[in-house]
Amino acid sequence: MRAAVLRGGTVEARVVADPVPGPGQLLVRSLACGICASDLHFMDHLDAGADDDSGMSTYDPEVDIVMGHEYCAEVVGYGPDTERRIPVGTRVSSLPILATPTGRKIIGQNPESPGGFGEYFLMSEAITRVVASDLPSEIVCVADAISVGWSAASRAQVTTSEVPLVIGCGAIALSAIAQLRRLGVGPIVAVDFVASRRATALAMGADVVVDPAEISPFQAWRDVVSGPAESMKELMAVAGLPGCVVFECVGVPGVLDSIIKGCERGTRIYSVGGPPEGDHLHTLTAKRKGLNIQFGGGPSMDHWDEAFEAVCSGSLDVTPLLGQTIGLDEVADGLAAARDATGPVRIIVTPSAQGRTTA
Amino acid sequence: MRAAVLRGGTVEARVVADPVPGPGQLLVRSLACGICASDLHFMDHLDAGADDDSGMSTYDPEVDIVMGHEYCAEVVGYGPDTERRIPVGTRVSSLPILATPTGRKIIGQNPESPGGFGEYFLMSEAITRVVASDLPSEIVCVADAISVGWSAASRAQVTTSEVPLVIGCGAIALSAIAQLRRLGVGPIVAVDFVASRRATALAMGADVVVDPAEISPFQAWRDVVSGPAESMKELMAVAGLPGCVVFECVGVPGVLDSIIKGCERGTRIYSVGGPPEGDHLHTLTAKRKGLNIQFGGGPSMDHWDEAFEAVCSGSLDVTPLLGQTIGLDEVADGLAAARDATGPVRIIVTPSAQGRTTA
Repeated sequence: MRAAVLRGGTVEARVVADPVPGPGQLLVRSLACGICASDLHFMDHLDAGADDDSGMSTYDPEVDIVMGHEYCAEVVGYGPDTERRIPVGTRVSSLPILATPTGRKIIGQNPESPGGFGEYFLMSEAITRVVASDLPSEIVCVADAISVGWSAASRAQVTTSEVPLVIGCGAIALSAIAQLRRLGVGPIVAVDFVASRRATALAMGADVVVDPAEISPFQAWRDVVSGPAESMKELMAVAGLPGCVVFECVGVPGVLDSIIKGCERGTRIYSVGGPPEGDHLHTLTAKRKGLNIQFGGGPSMDHWDEAFEAVCSGSLDVTPLLGQTIGLDEVADGLAAARDATGPVRIIVTPSAQGRTTA
Repeated sequence: MRAAVLRGGTVEARVVADPVPGPGQLLVRSLACGICASDLHFMDHLDAGADDDSGMSTYDPEVDIVMGHEYCAEVVGYGPDTERRIPVGTRVSSLPILATPTGRKIIGQNPESPGGFGEYFLMSEAITRVVASDLPSEIVCVADAISVGWSAASRAQVTTSEVPLVIGCGAIALSAIAQLRRLGVGPIVAVDFVASRRATALAMGADVVVDPAEISPFQAWRDVVSGPAESMKELMAVAGLPGCVVFECVGVPGVLDSIIKGCERGTRIYSVGGPPEGDHLHTLTAKRKGLNIQFGGGPSMDHWDEAFEAVCSGSLDVTPLLGQTIGLDEVADGLAAARDATGPVRIIVTPSAQGRTTA
């Protein structure tokens, strides 16, 4: 098959061996697969894998890796020990986890579990979901990106006496905003340096957007909660200053620490970005303020299913996130373009648009 | 008065001006005051204060500071605007917070709020508690140290399907252990390099103590939860591996990060130690494991009152924590001795034992 192959830090499209489904696995054809910031984190940070003793994510620069973990695919064949309940030709997606004889692997972050930036890859039948929708695959494939922020927003259980502050307006942040809106939480304050990202945040349900080059996000948050909104005034008359729930959706070193330094006492922080290289945190300040930090964690299966259903049913419109669609030959350029925060939130790869090639 | 005075990084006993009570303040005579690790953190880390924009804790090496925030004292006089409901001669204690016209200050960590390592200091009448006990002041003064771990253990709300792992066996850890025991949580696994500290942990209610030089604390924890205890077997048959709740009570750089690297997925971490200089954390690992870190925060007033009551009533025996009692002239040596983890958990200063001296 043809695939955009990561090796030694660079990506190029070439022919590699077709993946062969093992026990419990499906062979699928990649219809559409989004480029995610974690693809960039993965290819840039050889060292990050070294800290992961789970073996789920492994980057050996001497071995071919096909990235891509936000996919919509089509069933092509079955490995041994499969139930074969999903017919060939059915559109499917899943959490990007492949069960293998040597343990669970993240699809697109391990040589043993190639991803959607190739014509074919493998999925675990047990967690495969059928796409019950006529929406284009380029839209369906965004569901996995949506599930991460969706899950964080759900797990945060923001109360009516709390006001969320979303730092960063990438895919995770935007999906957190969308889910916070659906849960009736608000006002939602969202922060990004880039005007187009702030506009997308408004489209996804943010009430107030903030350019941190103009005003501190925490000052902006305080302005909102002490501002003219009657509902806030009533709330504060009863309960005092609302609690702050910060969603860190940036993943750049220093951001989480700047949140620790800037936030109110007792703030709850959901760190969903999390830079691959780790971060120096002023733990004494965190201690003085009694802060709570919940680190990401993948979405639960329930939350993934909820986000998938919302995207496939069209009840959550993800088109504001979509940029250009590209072929396998353009993946290297697409990855480079994804580094530009002024670009679209998602560039979509359609590996099969040029027809099948067999090794 | 005489006081052990911190200036320019060193402590010496000399005569300084008597403190003068302001509005709402009591003048009190220090009867007994414990030496705490945070006294050492405070005097060693000029830089830590720079990160604290609250103004509660301020270390100017050019100005005299009298440390000491774990005290039992006696009411001597009243400032203006006081209710004077507590008679002169009454033994008292409080959370170490002094309300002043320029804001709240930590007693013993600010030139404006001298502490119990001097003959006299100031307390806020509004939060002053009467010692309803005949126990010696050297015992009563330990209550504040108890309140920190007590509060963390209370707030953690460890469930019957979780097993706590206490890292470090200093005063905070020991009080956390005592409160976990009172709450019926267990088995309690406690970790320290020092044999005498492990023995004290057993005295305060730990079920299993671990020397991390011999076995990884996390392996020891896994051994306990999968070990021969029938109650654990029954629990695990129903609910699988129990959740892990780690109490970080060390405050040395690298410890919190080693917990992040070593712990199970989904672990809840209470970071009560927290090194003054901050720490580099592998946030990607924390994210992969979906960890939650609750940073210290002082005890709530309710928890402080509970711990104070437990100590004063004798229902919690803190004598295993007590070491020698020293005078003001020995505070510098006492601080140096407190750096030795093989020593007692608390050295107590009795500033008035040598009689009053007025400037």
